[in-house]
Amino acid sequence: MKGAILHGPRDVRCEEVPEPRILKPTDAIVRLSATCVCGSDLWPFRGLNEISAPMAMGHEYCGVVEEIGSAVKTVRPGQFVVGSFCISDNTCPHCRFGFQSSCEQREFMTGAQAPLARVPLADGTLVATPKIPADDLIPSFLAASDVLGTGWYAADAARVQPDSTVVVVGDGAVGLMGVLAAKQMRAGRIIAMSRHKTRQDLALEYGATDIVSERGEAGVARIKQLTNGVGADSVLECVGTKESMTQALQCARPGAMIGFVGVPHGVELDGAELFYAQRGLMGGPAPVRRFLPHLMELVAERKINPGKVFDLTLPLADVAEGYRAMDVRRAIKTLLRV
Amino acid sequence: MKGAILHGPRDVRCEEVPEPRILKPTDAIVRLSATCVCGSDLWPFRGLNEISAPMAMGHEYCGVVEEIGSAVKTVRPGQFVVGSFCISDNTCPHCRFGFQSSCEQREFMTGAQAPLARVPLADGTLVATPKIPADDLIPSFLAASDVLGTGWYAADAARVQPDSTVVVVGDGAVGLMGVLAAKQMRAGRIIAMSRHKTRQDLALEYGATDIVSERGEAGVARIKQLTNGVGADSVLECVGTKESMTQALQCARPGAMIGFVGVPHGVELDGAELFYAQRGLMGGPAPVRRFLPHLMELVAERKINPGKVFDLTLPLADVAEGYRAMDVRRAIKTLLRV
Repeated sequence: MKGAILHGPRDVRCEEVPEPRILKPTDAIVRLSATCVCGSDLWPFRGLNEISAPMAMGHEYCGVVEEIGSAVKTVRPGQFVVGSFCISDNTCPHCRFGFQSSCEQREFMTGAQAPLARVPLADGTLVATPKIPADDLIPSFLAASDVLGTGWYAADAARVQPDSTVVVVGDGAVGLMGVLAAKQMRAGRIIAMSRHKTRQDLALEYGATDIVSERGEAGVARIKQLTNGVGADSVLECVGTKESMTQALQCARPGAMIGFVGVPHGVELDGAELFYAQRGLMGGPAPVRRFLPHLMELVAERKINPGKVFDLTLPLADVAEGYRAMDVRRAIKTLLRV
Repeated sequence: MKGAILHGPRDVRCEEVPEPRILKPTDAIVRLSATCVCGSDLWPFRGLNEISAPMAMGHEYCGVVEEIGSAVKTVRPGQFVVGSFCISDNTCPHCRFGFQSSCEQREFMTGAQAPLARVPLADGTLVATPKIPADDLIPSFLAASDVLGTGWYAADAARVQPDSTVVVVGDGAVGLMGVLAAKQMRAGRIIAMSRHKTRQDLALEYGATDIVSERGEAGVARIKQLTNGVGADSVLECVGTKESMTQALQCARPGAMIGFVGVPHGVELDGAELFYAQRGLMGGPAPVRRFLPHLMELVAERKINPGKVFDLTLPLADVAEGYRAMDVRRAIKTLLRV
C-alpha cells in the first residue's frame, strides 16, 4: 500500500510501505475511512523536531475494523471505530483517573496517513459506533480522534464553567475546536484570537462571541478592555510557543486556569512570576479517550460539526501538498482521502 | 513603641519605632494580642532577598481594634479581629472571585512585629469575632492570619478531595498547616515529608497517615511505593526551592494538581516537561481572606488547634533570637509576646 513518510524537513512523500499486520494479540487493523494532517505534524515537517530516520506519519484515524488480535474483546471486524492518537489500555490507574494520555502502556499512534493502520491495545483505545455512520459524518468522526478531543481537553483543563469568559489563543484547528468545546460547556463569552478571515468566520460559527485580531501587548490590552480590566476566567493555549504562552498567561485573571495543549517549543516558566501572577496551568497530550464516547455521540446526533475544520481535501497521493497548504496557512486542516 | 526592624542579613533588632496612626479613612489601628515570625521573613533575614533600607518586619497579626478611620464600617474599637497578611478591599472583581491576594488594591502587611499595627483597607481585610476570645486561643487565631490560611490555600489549590491521597512537601509551619487542612478536607491518606522528629510528631497529630523522611529520588521512590506506583492526587508544595518543586512534581500522578505556596526562589519550569508530565499547577500568595471566616469559626469552636505550631514563645525584645531559632530549625515557629 501507499503511505506518507517524512524523510527530512519539508520532504514528505506518499510511497510504498508494508501493509500493517497484527503483531500482538491486543492489536486491531483498521481500514481507514479518511485520515488527515495534524498541526503537530508540522513541527517535524518544518525541521523543528529532529528526525533520525524516515518516519511513518499520521496519528488521526477512523474507519472499519478489518482484523483483530486473539485477545481483543470489545470491537470486532466490520465495526466503525474511532481511536485516540494516544494508545491506552484504559484500565491502569492513570486511565481510570481519566488521564489515558499518561497510560502506563501509552504509545503514540503512527503511520495513520495510509489506507490501513495497526492500532495497539485496541480494547482500550478504540470506540465503536452502533452502526456505520453516513459518509458526510466521516470528517467529524475523524476530528474526534485528536483535534476535537484536544480542543475539548483544553477547555476541560481550563475548567470552563457555564457563563464564564473564555479566551482561545490560537486559531488553528485545535483552537477552533476549543471554541466549539467552550460553547458546548456553555461559556458565556468566548473570545477567539485570530487574524485570518476564514478562521475568524469559522470561530464565529462555532460559537465565538468576540474576535481579537491584535497580538502581544495590544492583544492583551484588547482582552482587558473586553473584560472590564479583569481578564478571562479560562484560557485555552492552543499553539505552544513562548509568545502564545505569554499571551495566555497575560489574558487570564488571577485564579484563572490555562489549559495548554499546544506542544511547548521553547517555553520556560519562571516560578516566581507564575506565583505572583497567580495563574493556574494544566495541560499535556489530551486524554481523548476520556471524552470520545461523548464526542462521538454529539457527532452522531449532528449536534456539533467539527468536520468543518477540514477546508482542504486531497487524495493521499498529494499528501505533500496537504502539508504545504497548512504550513503557509492556506488551509486550516487537510483531510486525506485514502 | 518598640518594633522589629531588619537592618541587613541576620541583623534584626527590636528598637524604637514611631507609633502607627490613621493615614487614610479606611485604616484601622490594632493593638496586637500577639505576633510572630514567618518562614518568609527568613528570606530577607538570610540575605536571599536584598533589602535597600531598614525594613519594618511582621505581617501576621490579631488583636483588639484601637482606632478606626472615618470610612471604616464593619469593625469598631474594642472588637477582636484577625486580618490577612494581604491587604484587600474584598470588593474588586479579583476579591469577588476569591483571590483577595490579587486584589486591585493589594498591599502586603508590614510592621506587625510590634504592639500596634496600622491595617489599611480595614473593612476588606479584617474579620471580627463575636466576642473577645479566651487567651489560650490567641495563638490559633494568630495562625489564621497567614500560616493556616496559606496551608489551607495550598490544599484548596491542589484540589484535595475526600478520600484522596495527598503529599505535603515541607515540614515548616505552612506544611504542617497543609496537613491540618487536608485532614479537614477529609483526604484519605496524607503523606508528610519530614526528617525532623518534632515536626513528624506534630504532622501525625494534625492528621498525617504516613511520614516519609527520604528526599530527592529516594523520597519519590518511597512515595511511589506507598501509592502502588501511581503518585499522589494532590501535592502541597510548601517550601519554594527548585528541589522542593521538583519533588512535588515527581510525587504527583498525571492529572494531579500541585498547590504551591512556598515563595519560589530559583524555580524554573520547562514547558515541555510540564506538558508531558501532565501535572497541574496553581499557587501564589494565599487569599487568606477567603478562608478567614471559616477558619476563625473552626478555631473558636476548638475544632482545630493550629496554634500548636508555635513551639517557641519569646518577648518581642528577643525577636532576634526568635529568627535565629527558626533559621537553624530549633523552632518551627516563634510567637512573640507584645
